[in-house]
Amino acid sequence: MGKIADKYFRVDPWKIVEDGFDKNYSKVAESVYSLGNEYMGIRGYFEEGYSGDTLLGSYFNGVYENEKLEGSSYKGIVDQTDFMVNSVDWIYTRILVDGEYLDLNQSKIRNYQRILDMRTGILTRNLVWITQSGKEIEIKFERFLSMVNAHIGVQKITIKALNFSGKLEVESGMDFSIIHQSRQRNFWDCKKVVDKEEYLALRGTTLQSKHQVYSGARFIPSANQVETLHNETVDSKVLTNTFVYELQQNETVSLTKIVDNVVYRAETDGEESEFQRECKDVENYLQTLTYEKLYEESASWWEQVWKNSDIRIDGDEENQQGIRFCIFQMFQTYHGARMGNNIGAKGLTGEAYNGNAFWDTETYCLPFFLFNNLQAAKNLLLYRYVTLPEARQRAMDLDCKGAFYPVATISGRECCNLWQHASLQLQASTAVAYGIWLYDKITADKDFLYENGIEMLVEVCRMLATRGSWSADQTRYGFYSVMGPDEFQMMVNHNCYTNYMAKFTLSYTITVLEQFKEIHEEQYSKVRENLQVTDDELSEWNKMWKCMYLPKDEMTRIYEQHEGFFNLPHVDVDTIPIEDFPLYDHWSYDRIYRNDMIKQPDVLMFMLLFNNNFTEEELKANYEFYEPKCIHESSLSPSVHSILASQLKKHEEAYELFQFATRMDLDNYNRNSGQGLHTTSISAAWMNIVYGFGGMRSDGEHLELNPSIPKEWQGYSFHITYKQQVISVEVGKERIQLYTLEDIPVTICVYGNIYEINQKATEITIPVEWRG
Amino acid sequence: MGKIADKYFRVDPWKIVEDGFDKNYSKVAESVYSLGNEYMGIRGYFEEGYSGDTLLGSYFNGVYENEKLEGSSYKGIVDQTDFMVNSVDWIYTRILVDGEYLDLNQSKIRNYQRILDMRTGILTRNLVWITQSGKEIEIKFERFLSMVNAHIGVQKITIKALNFSGKLEVESGMDFSIIHQSRQRNFWDCKKVVDKEEYLALRGTTLQSKHQVYSGARFIPSANQVETLHNETVDSKVLTNTFVYELQQNETVSLTKIVDNVVYRAETDGEESEFQRECKDVENYLQTLTYEKLYEESASWWEQVWKNSDIRIDGDEENQQGIRFCIFQMFQTYHGARMGNNIGAKGLTGEAYNGNAFWDTETYCLPFFLFNNLQAAKNLLLYRYVTLPEARQRAMDLDCKGAFYPVATISGRECCNLWQHASLQLQASTAVAYGIWLYDKITADKDFLYENGIEMLVEVCRMLATRGSWSADQTRYGFYSVMGPDEFQMMVNHNCYTNYMAKFTLSYTITVLEQFKEIHEEQYSKVRENLQVTDDELSEWNKMWKCMYLPKDEMTRIYEQHEGFFNLPHVDVDTIPIEDFPLYDHWSYDRIYRNDMIKQPDVLMFMLLFNNNFTEEELKANYEFYEPKCIHESSLSPSVHSILASQLKKHEEAYELFQFATRMDLDNYNRNSGQGLHTTSISAAWMNIVYGFGGMRSDGEHLELNPSIPKEWQGYSFHITYKQQVISVEVGKERIQLYTLEDIPVTICVYGNIYEINQKATEITIPVEWRG
Repeated sequence: MGKIADKYFRVDPWKIVEDGFDKNYSKVAESVYSLGNEYMGIRGYFEEGYSGDTLLGSYFNGVYENEKLEGSSYKGIVDQTDFMVNSVDWIYTRILVDGEYLDLNQSKIRNYQRILDMRTGILTRNLVWITQSGKEIEIKFERFLSMVNAHIGVQKITIKALNFSGKLEVESGMDFSIIHQSRQRNFWDCKKVVDKEEYLALRGTTLQSKHQVYSGARFIPSANQVETLHNETVDSKVLTNTFVYELQQNETVSLTKIVDNVVYRAETDGEESEFQRECKDVENYLQTLTYEKLYEESASWWEQVWKNSDIRIDGDEENQQGIRFCIFQMFQTYHGARMGNNIGAKGLTGEAYNGNAFWDTETYCLPFFLFNNLQAAKNLLLYRYVTLPEARQRAMDLDCKGAFYPVATISGRECCNLWQHASLQLQASTAVAYGIWLYDKITADKDFLYENGIEMLVEVCRMLATRGSWSADQTRYGFYSVMGPDEFQMMVNHNCYTNYMAKFTLSYTITVLEQFKEIHEEQYSKVRENLQVTDDELSEWNKMWKCMYLPKDEMTRIYEQHEGFFNLPHVDVDTIPIEDFPLYDHWSYDRIYRNDMIKQPDVLMFMLLFNNNFTEEELKANYEFYEPKCIHESSLSPSVHSILASQLKKHEEAYELFQFATRMDLDNYNRNSGQGLHTTSISAAWMNIVYGFGGMRSDGEHLELNPSIPKEWQGYSFHITYKQQVISVEVGKERIQLYTLEDIPVTICVYGNIYEINQKATEITIPVEWRG
Repeated sequence: MGKIADKYFRVDPWKIVEDGFDKNYSKVAESVYSLGNEYMGIRGYFEEGYSGDTLLGSYFNGVYENEKLEGSSYKGIVDQTDFMVNSVDWIYTRILVDGEYLDLNQSKIRNYQRILDMRTGILTRNLVWITQSGKEIEIKFERFLSMVNAHIGVQKITIKALNFSGKLEVESGMDFSIIHQSRQRNFWDCKKVVDKEEYLALRGTTLQSKHQVYSGARFIPSANQVETLHNETVDSKVLTNTFVYELQQNETVSLTKIVDNVVYRAETDGEESEFQRECKDVENYLQTLTYEKLYEESASWWEQVWKNSDIRIDGDEENQQGIRFCIFQMFQTYHGARMGNNIGAKGLTGEAYNGNAFWDTETYCLPFFLFNNLQAAKNLLLYRYVTLPEARQRAMDLDCKGAFYPVATISGRECCNLWQHASLQLQASTAVAYGIWLYDKITADKDFLYENGIEMLVEVCRMLATRGSWSADQTRYGFYSVMGPDEFQMMVNHNCYTNYMAKFTLSYTITVLEQFKEIHEEQYSKVRENLQVTDDELSEWNKMWKCMYLPKDEMTRIYEQHEGFFNLPHVDVDTIPIEDFPLYDHWSYDRIYRNDMIKQPDVLMFMLLFNNNFTEEELKANYEFYEPKCIHESSLSPSVHSILASQLKKHEEAYELFQFATRMDLDNYNRNSGQGLHTTSISAAWMNIVYGFGGMRSDGEHLELNPSIPKEWQGYSFHITYKQQVISVEVGKERIQLYTLEDIPVTICVYGNIYEINQKATEITIPVEWRG
């Protein structure tokens, strides 16, 4: 894999620390210092303006702009896209002394330090600015987003004149004029609403999608503020007040800004009048809030997170910091605050991937939430439920019945403009079925299953029954012209993953319907009638899953990734020069697709998702066949392999593959963290520890644990919430301890034996083969 | 196939006649009445202006504009395109009486008739215009392009006042301001050069490609012209003179316009000073020309064409007219006047397909020229020679060595922006090898072979040796991730056509090199050194063609179109509703690619190209397997099937498939002839008769003929030029006659027997099985 760390931040178990500012890392640091609360996200850019390299990103979850693509297009090829649009810079600030602005690209500074405290979610930056005339000014910037009231963001600037007395101006307000970097345009129309001395409000509307963002800011200047000037641009995109301070040497002044951002999207947010009423109340509402109260609320929210979801690693501070950063970012991006939100590939930290969510959500993120925050897990599945109409439309566009879930989306519409991905990948749809199944398995929440899940399952089955085909001799059912998870095999027949997942989806749906009928016959009849499920359909689905073709060499027990894969020309991936990576940048596009090299797990993927269905011998044969062919050109790939390597007791290989999972962005392994964080691989890092070293399996009858410990570690612990109980798993060199935080016992299978875990620690010796 | 004729033009053996004007057919008629002389082409639009539906197309061969495409792109994906740009409307005319313009969309007319005389190439239109005040004016429009001096176009307007005497104005000149219809832009910058009363000159330059067109027009007004006014637009794109006539009742006046259009393209046309000198001479040169002389020269050029290349059909006037129209358009589009020209899919008759040439050139058009105009055939192959640098660059872009010929091109650069076609289709490259082989076979022109052919062959072999791969077990060579001629199987392995053509190319190239060495060892050594052909390369190519995998069921003798084709889900093409066609418009794009339906011949294509390599039994088995799976969604497809059906003595089926070949455009079978003519299918129509009913085969040791006659015909005859002799083949119901026009004997194989044909007719009885 040959990825190399680019070390920059100071290692610390709870903090991300930048000692001194290096311009070369400005955008990486912006990404790493991103704050988010699911509702909104803001990169760690310098609020006072920065003339160097920056991606000034402030985003709201689900606020996107439409783009219609040029050129004629064939049926089923997506000719529009929705992209998360950068929105108001609500921390906009300028600091001016003697006509000179603070600008870290130009100004002379000392004692610079930036700290993100993951325990509380506050981002702090300290520095001393030395002006051209030698004036020294100590400045402290603080910002945080409320985790309790998601509309609220808080910014505080504290200033002290160290060697002079005199005038200093702080301009503060909001700016909708930021250019979307990849499209080189601004997408907002603006209207000023209020311009008072201590309160400003501005409303922006996107040009095409007509999404609205109302941004209202209350200013609380400290005593020495002597004058307020008002500024606005002719297009009303920038609205600010300038607070003029009369500084006294060694005296501290400050400006606190509490901002309420309210979003309105006609298609999902109900009546506009409701939004207008809320906007009107903002000014009064902000009067009721204080910096201190907001901070305390938020910090205690984080305290609870760490209590229930922390992972501790002893003897490895780098991974300790890394995994906490992953958990922190995961909760920032998503915690189920609002139905209708999903998790973009870059979260709320950058423009890349257009803010679109992929099938990563169900496959990689859902397990994290299932064992940390059930409401969030449910809301992720409800996202797919509320976007069923769009998935139905997409199925129609593709000449299928039922629902075809999008490969990439914000609104539920397909946004992927590469037809080969959008039309050939069925895994987004089967991932929804997998998610429903896993959620049901862990929660036994039958209300969700029968009210929402069943409708999605039926519609996905209908798609599978119309998208697939019978072989020429009518004996085998399967999918032709598909792209499986391994995107290096672009257009193949009988992709084993696709067929496997379809077989599961069809058979599971039939089982769910049968059980539903047994349990609630009346309700069942109503649902069947509503969905117009016919007997013919059911018998067709039955026939299909039973005859689903899973290409496999029965001698070696190796599944064939797709029909014909075993005959493909061989490429020894170890002989590809390192400078050829990433291959998409250096190889002709078509060259990538015609050999046995794979980009990411495909057969191994379903062997992980349905781990209990395979013997260790089968897994071993397949792992040893496919792993050497994989170039891991997806950030999600190494973790899957690491988890399976642990299972196969290839402990060193598992640790090798784990190497950069937790620090993908902190050490900028892919050299593109400046564009935004690899949010979904953050959840893979969590899985790598809990499913990998922890050996957790959630697809069997019981929850299983088979902890192993890398020899590099002294010990580690993690928490999972299961059956409404927080379970702590502490793994030492030779022994593990398990206990629940409250006194309600939970049954778990550890190393193949059933245990009842309670508040009193259960101690189990680690079998020798599981010691790393 | 279910194509239905849309009858409009009057049937006549030598003319295309329009009796009365129907606005609904305006664009179809414009296409059908297109004139061309290879150098330039002009659609049959009304020169006097027309406010109704029109595609005002005036084109110059090889004059194109560049377009850079938006959006990021992967390596090897073409991000630019060249498109034939519409150029100067050099027949621009307006006719004005009492402030009223003649406009066939508005004006009242009678006695309208338009005739294209294919014997002479002149297009004539007669009508009587009745003005709003009741004035009746008889007008005759004539136009033709010189077939001898390709820069020259001639236009004549003759006017008679039938019931009044009075003033009439004819505005005439040139107009560069025409909007390119599909791109909705004009691409010309213009500069006025001369504006005299009887001579106007204007120079246009394309915005990006900087191609220049100088258009100089000499006006010859008749006696009663009393005044000349000058007009030009501020942007200099339109430059005209208005000739004011004082009409006397029943007296005839006229305006003759002789135009010299000179093209300059820096990349291919040498020194610009030469072009400038030529432009300067235009005015004087035009003084030396007369309408009559130009007409006579041109008409006698056409006379020679018909003498050597006519096809006569007795008892079927529709096909008689149709096939002559095909031959006429073929010679108009291309006759080898200039190296560096090629044949666009729509010739010079419309914007569709961007004026790009495809592999149709070598596969469908080359045989026509090989047996009608050898110089043209050679020039077509030289086109590929002069564009070798672009093909080498394309190979590099695709990570291959050697030369990868473009799927669609004007300049030699790849212009196809669908990566799946541009990167996966190898048939353009192997078609070049096929063309060289066929040209060599028919002409034995070893100079061309050793000076030009060999270099192309070596470079295509290099591409094949780097684009292909060995199977996993190293026993089979072939091509992975390719699209064969059948574009409904988009991305497959071991496409039989691709492998077959590659096998041919590699083995033929080795044979050529070996023979070259034997014949001219010194020259051979020099060429090998120049091309740096190594022994390793040769032994590699030898191994490759010998191990080339041709998937085939040895039991049934059916070649498998690609590995896995036999296992594809079956679609009964006869059950597809007629309203689903064309499928690209009605089926989801990806749905087309996942079954055993085929768009056009693939296996049957190489069985036609190398017909002698297969037994009739083999051909029969493959024809009967593949024909029912083919939906013929390429206008070239039915002719190939018809030719093979004739060979299999399926005479009725052959005639059925021939049905619309000659009248594709005259009867607007595809309902898109308004966009331009199906130029390359015009050559397929010729092949359909000569290779189909005539049973000609040119791939064996001797030229073979196996004429059959459709029962619908009384007789037919065609001419072929072979071994420099024009041979007439006359086929009756029971007998055929063959003779040469001059007294030099030629050896031909007819019905399996060798004959020496000379000026005295050889009469041969048609064997019973060959009677339709």
